[in-house]
Amino acid sequence: MTYYVDLNSDLGESFGAFKIGQDDLVMNYISSANIACGFHAGDYNVMQHTVKKASEKKVGIGAHPGLLDLIGFGRRPMKIDPQEVYNLVIYQVGSLQAFAHINQNELNHVKAHGALYNMAGKDAEIAQAIAEAVYAINPNLILFGLAGSELVKAGKKAGLPVAEEVFADRTYQPDGSLTPRTLANAMVEDANEAVSRVIRMVKDGKVEAIDGSDIVINVDTICIHGDEPKSLEFAKRLCTALTEHGIIIKRVGK
Amino acid sequence: MTYYVDLNSDLGESFGAFKIGQDDLVMNYISSANIACGFHAGDYNVMQHTVKKASEKKVGIGAHPGLLDLIGFGRRPMKIDPQEVYNLVIYQVGSLQAFAHINQNELNHVKAHGALYNMAGKDAEIAQAIAEAVYAINPNLILFGLAGSELVKAGKKAGLPVAEEVFADRTYQPDGSLTPRTLANAMVEDANEAVSRVIRMVKDGKVEAIDGSDIVINVDTICIHGDEPKSLEFAKRLCTALTEHGIIIKRVGK
Amino acid sequence: MTYYVDLNSDLGESFGAFKIGQDDLVMNYISSANIACGFHAGDYNVMQHTVKKASEKKVGIGAHPGLLDLIGFGRRPMKIDPQEVYNLVIYQVGSLQAFAHINQNELNHVKAHGALYNMAGKDAEIAQAIAEAVYAINPNLILFGLAGSELVKAGKKAGLPVAEEVFADRTYQPDGSLTPRTLANAMVEDANEAVSRVIRMVKDGKVEAIDGSDIVINVDTICIHGDEPKSLEFAKRLCTALTEHGIIIKRVGK
Amino acid sequence: MTYYVDLNSDLGESFGAFKIGQDDLVMNYISSANIACGFHAGDYNVMQHTVKKASEKKVGIGAHPGLLDLIGFGRRPMKIDPQEVYNLVIYQVGSLQAFAHINQNELNHVKAHGALYNMAGKDAEIAQAIAEAVYAINPNLILFGLAGSELVKAGKKAGLPVAEEVFADRTYQPDGSLTPRTLANAMVEDANEAVSRVIRMVKDGKVEAIDGSDIVINVDTICIHGDEPKSLEFAKRLCTALTEHGIIIKRVGK
Repeated sequence: MTYYVDLNSDLGESFGAFKIGQDDLVMNYISSANIACGFHAGDYNVMQHTVKKASEKKVGIGAHPGLLDLIGFGRRPMKIDPQEVYNLVIYQVGSLQAFAHINQNELNHVKAHGALYNMAGKDAEIAQAIAEAVYAINPNLILFGLAGSELVKAGKKAGLPVAEEVFADRTYQPDGSLTPRTLANAMVEDANEAVSRVIRMVKDGKVEAIDGSDIVINVDTICIHGDEPKSLEFAKRLCTALTEHGIIIKRVGK
Repeated sequence: MTYYVDLNSDLGESFGAFKIGQDDLVMNYISSANIACGFHAGDYNVMQHTVKKASEKKVGIGAHPGLLDLIGFGRRPMKIDPQEVYNLVIYQVGSLQAFAHINQNELNHVKAHGALYNMAGKDAEIAQAIAEAVYAINPNLILFGLAGSELVKAGKKAGLPVAEEVFADRTYQPDGSLTPRTLANAMVEDANEAVSRVIRMVKDGKVEAIDGSDIVINVDTICIHGDEPKSLEFAKRLCTALTEHGIIIKRVGK
Repeated sequence: MTYYVDLNSDLGESFGAFKIGQDDLVMNYISSANIACGFHAGDYNVMQHTVKKASEKKVGIGAHPGLLDLIGFGRRPMKIDPQEVYNLVIYQVGSLQAFAHINQNELNHVKAHGALYNMAGKDAEIAQAIAEAVYAINPNLILFGLAGSELVKAGKKAGLPVAEEVFADRTYQPDGSLTPRTLANAMVEDANEAVSRVIRMVKDGKVEAIDGSDIVINVDTICIHGDEPKSLEFAKRLCTALTEHGIIIKRVGK
Repeated sequence: MTYYVDLNSDLGESFGAFKIGQDDLVMNYISSANIACGFHAGDYNVMQHTVKKASEKKVGIGAHPGLLDLIGFGRRPMKIDPQEVYNLVIYQVGSLQAFAHINQNELNHVKAHGALYNMAGKDAEIAQAIAEAVYAINPNLILFGLAGSELVKAGKKAGLPVAEEVFADRTYQPDGSLTPRTLANAMVEDANEAVSRVIRMVKDGKVEAIDGSDIVINVDTICIHGDEPKSLEFAKRLCTALTEHGIIIKRVGK
């Protein structure tokens, strides 16, 4: 039996003179790039550069819309009306779509960023607003969401193709949600363990939660980080391990 | 003989709790709306509202990209690289295009705002950057530019349909450029005179410059302001006068 | 017996070309101005203009720091670390203090804005961060807070003079908190009733809550709005009524 | 004979999640820190952190106000009214002054950043606006300016103590201005040569211009960069060389 999985990473997070990440290197290991759209990170120059590079490397292009909170990197939850969420997704996806178009390419997916992603994982109204915005722009766009979350449900309900996402370096709670970063055991610190967990998730559809119980999980795409030297090393190792286990890294929807 | 002319106005300039203009009223008199895209004015909520209203009223929708200068309302010239101008036009036009799309409508034109418009009128490189960005997004978009300016030339050179624009309330210099607002005689204060000048420009293709000489001018669209009570009154009067003189107000390109 | 009360209003909320309020008129009726500091509203030019005008009219100058959320006018609650609250209060109060200084004046008070004010009313940690920031800048500054709230408690604990604030046009819940604006009965719509309630609060220290019960309330300052024509009319009426009832309008701390 | 000179560097340029520079290391070699104030770089959290560190290391604290242009890092010249320059300097210096105060420290100097610094070097009105703003806040603050520039003249005229600044890694034109970075020979690439030039400037008050002629230059402070690994190495080497040549590194005004 052949297994397929997508590897995604957040790219294009630099802003003006402020440089973040090692995008050019990370692109060698991933099949999907989530490109910041100027609200929590990224700017119009960075977007053009990143879309161009991703197009050259045949990496799938995704819009990565976030809250309008540059100083907080879009990571701070805020009270926000679903209609406003709908509008800010239209705005940001629209802008990235234009950069894809002028590079003779097209958007493949949309992944909400940070607090917006997390809020949409638990709040059905926020999730619905994102799903409807993406559908309104293009019903063929693939919506990324935390595996088993409200966002995945909203995407399916809206009629969008969805990709259920897992995190290689994060632990899970018995209900399938991510352990909050504020807790001590939120991260899988050991790289070997992280790789083993990912392979089990992809092949067996299971992961051990923090209470020792097994939970069922559906994996279409794996999120890896690209903003630390260690992360790049991990990306290489994960790629190698996936290949050794007969798992083919392939862009979602292709 | 029948004459046609387009009437355009800058709309959608509110931002969050900050309200500007009387958009709903101005839309009754114009054929083209230049809608701010969030850089010098406007935000994603205002864009959605304005595009929806303009669509209902059958007013042509145009993107109105500006410099990233909210505090200066995009009116302050700054040193900016043509490549950056290209990217910021892509970004802003892309975002507005998405709002047009989700309202089952499409963009009709692009008009640069404020300092960007003025810089592009005189600087061939800036003009070219704008024209190429608009062409890359959609070669059918109509590029607005000051009649006779570098922006009009760049649009034609890029292969875009262009609309040459005149200002009802501004005086002209012998070389066809607008008299700078910093000079005392920049404005046509008398509404009757402004109306007469517009009708002459449309019918005869001529306008009297500040030195008394006549200059040849090509008029596709007339810019009227919408942010003062007086402006609304003027819009009504101009509409009436144009009709009385057999000039039909019609969206450019339709 | 003579009664004293302070009347305060949020001023200096314009931003660049975006105009809000009727500051010059409102200043005729109030004794304290809460001046926006550029985060949720206001800018450096508006701050200088407003401080100058308030100084001329002998209105007490207060810093009105808010969350860094211009598009949301600082009204959207967000998750924010107390240390960050401390720093953003230092920044904003410091900047307004400089404008007071160059106008040969000095700050009299600090009032947090919008979501920051509301969060600090209920969250003791946020309240403490604000109080300590104000104290660190100048222990003589008067801290404004909702009457009976955590912010008032934190101010007293930090050693600051505090002013307990009531809202003329808002209803109260039995626990002394404001009825949320999302509820139907949040506002006192009738101006006569609003005036009567204020006078009873000042003279008797009591107000009727929405369940009909009387609650005890301490009033040092009354907040009135200045951004609607109706509000100005109300300000006049309230001033007249207070005077008729022997209540003298006087800046807190003077 | 003993020579004294100040070494200054731009610090506190990080913004939220965006990290720039090696401030903690650079502080070991300099006597004055120019701390960004949130307009072109820096934020309230970074300002507090940087002021605290500089205070611990006994490095002189300076405000480093810039244009409101985060995406351009304050490096893009723009058309700006002198009154607006005055106000934005008041705002930024005021905010940094508050951070100095809460750290039981005080501001020592003010150095304008990037385009604002360069504009003020040549434009007497901009220079005057900066000088008057600094004077209004505190007439004892030391104003930094390019040696021999309009900013230095304006500072003296306003009655401020001034520090004339040279750049270790930049070449000079015969008129004493810096060779623009757009020209090929703008930078002194060789570190040994840069060190020799600095020592000659400090001891002899002379530097060779790009045409081979010697120009007279007055040196109170030397600007070194801190945002590249090479720059840190250069800072060390310059410190050593200055000491070996009997030049004592000392904060201006102390």
